Amino acid sequence: MNGFAPGAIAKPRLALIGGTGALGTGLARHWAAAGYHVIIGSRTVDKAEASARAIAAASGNRTLHGAANASAAQAGDVVLLAVPWASHAQILDEIKPHVAGKIVIDATVPLVPPKVARVQLPAETSAALAAQKRLGDTARVVAAFHNVSASKLQGDAPIDCDVLVFGDAPEDRAAVVALAEAAGLRGIHAGPLANAVAAEALTSVLIGINRHYKIPGAGIRITGLGKE
Amino acid sequence: MNGFAPGAIAKPRLALIGGTGALGTGLARHWAAAGYHVIIGSRTVDKAEASARAIAAASGNRTLHGAANASAAQAGDVVLLAVPWASHAQILDEIKPHVAGKIVIDATVPLVPPKVARVQLPAETSAALAAQKRLGDTARVVAAFHNVSASKLQGDAPIDCDVLVFGDAPEDRAAVVALAEAAGLRGIHAGPLANAVAAEALTSVLIGINRHYKIPGAGIRITGLGKE
Repeated sequence: MNGFAPGAIAKPRLALIGGTGALGTGLARHWAAAGYHVIIGSRTVDKAEASARAIAAASGNRTLHGAANASAAQAGDVVLLAVPWASHAQILDEIKPHVAGKIVIDATVPLVPPKVARVQLPAETSAALAAQKRLGDTARVVAAFHNVSASKLQGDAPIDCDVLVFGDAPEDRAAVVALAEAAGLRGIHAGPLANAVAAEALTSVLIGINRHYKIPGAGIRITGLGKE
Repeated sequence: MNGFAPGAIAKPRLALIGGTGALGTGLARHWAAAGYHVIIGSRTVDKAEASARAIAAASGNRTLHGAANASAAQAGDVVLLAVPWASHAQILDEIKPHVAGKIVIDATVPLVPPKVARVQLPAETSAALAAQKRLGDTARVVAAFHNVSASKLQGDAPIDCDVLVFGDAPEDRAAVVALAEAAGLRGIHAGPLANAVAAEALTSVLIGINRHYKIPGAGIRITGLGKE
């Protein structure tokens, strides 16, 4: 007999840095609905608390709360970064003292306005590698959630998009694949952190496809896995 | 009355440089079967001719012939490059005198063995940008066919993979989208040549997914276009 009930595994507390943005609130509402303890981080505590109250009311999950980014990072077991590229370095510096040993999920895409449909790689090749460099080796950076349409995450309809998960440690990738699935998305092991440039660049491609074909939210699916 | 019958539009002669490889022969058989005049280019004329004979016999298309890479490039209206990254620069130099004003489709992925499941970007960011730089402005470089499984192109079953088409001129992209469709694949306008890094990097991701999930040929689909 296997006495180990999967439901008994503690859910990690999730700190969403930049959590008042479209991607952050979209993910927060799905994780809150799935019973996760979610902390919404923002530069402005008032905005973070207002956002947390709204998601708590919608999801019926009373464990949500808002906090300044650094406090949110401190309170989270897993820290997710969904911030504009222009704020990426500064916010990494703010959370760095609080993420040693933690999984840091970087969902940041290095878009450079106004040409956001054009791939413009940063000096470090990708936001993910820039984050690892900035945080140092103690943080376990995993990159994911680059390609999912933030607007679609606001709704309850099934989302036709896979989540490519990049990270150097297979067990850290697996934890994030599980979080994608808890949010109703299919997570896929997509290789080392160095591969995150593929998904980051793809976001510009998808923005361009949305414009060219006049559609609201292109996404991607990996085929050949036998379960699509 | 519109007296212009689509069937009357001349099909471009297609020169497949590196056409004896898996991707080249796979595309050649589909285009030959669709009635295109295909020239198989190789470093070795004997190999090119043998490959052309085999595809001609299989497809019933007698217009195929084999040639040395430079002669093939000269004979083609559209030139496709499907060569190993290690030969890319040298073969570009060989064909350069023969591709002025022509569409050059670069399907090359800058894989660096042995770690082909790891993205390792070239100095020029992508093979596509390296090709444009090397050929100069007179060649109209379009990047495509990076993600389609070469082994699946050898068969006749429908292939569950989209072809992302990158190029700076929309009309050149459109010509390659049409060629993808002639080969039984869905071609998608994916933005400027600078965006090709997304599809090139994705090939390493797909190789890694094949290994991780023990499947033969992962591919990609763009969702949200309303016709999948």
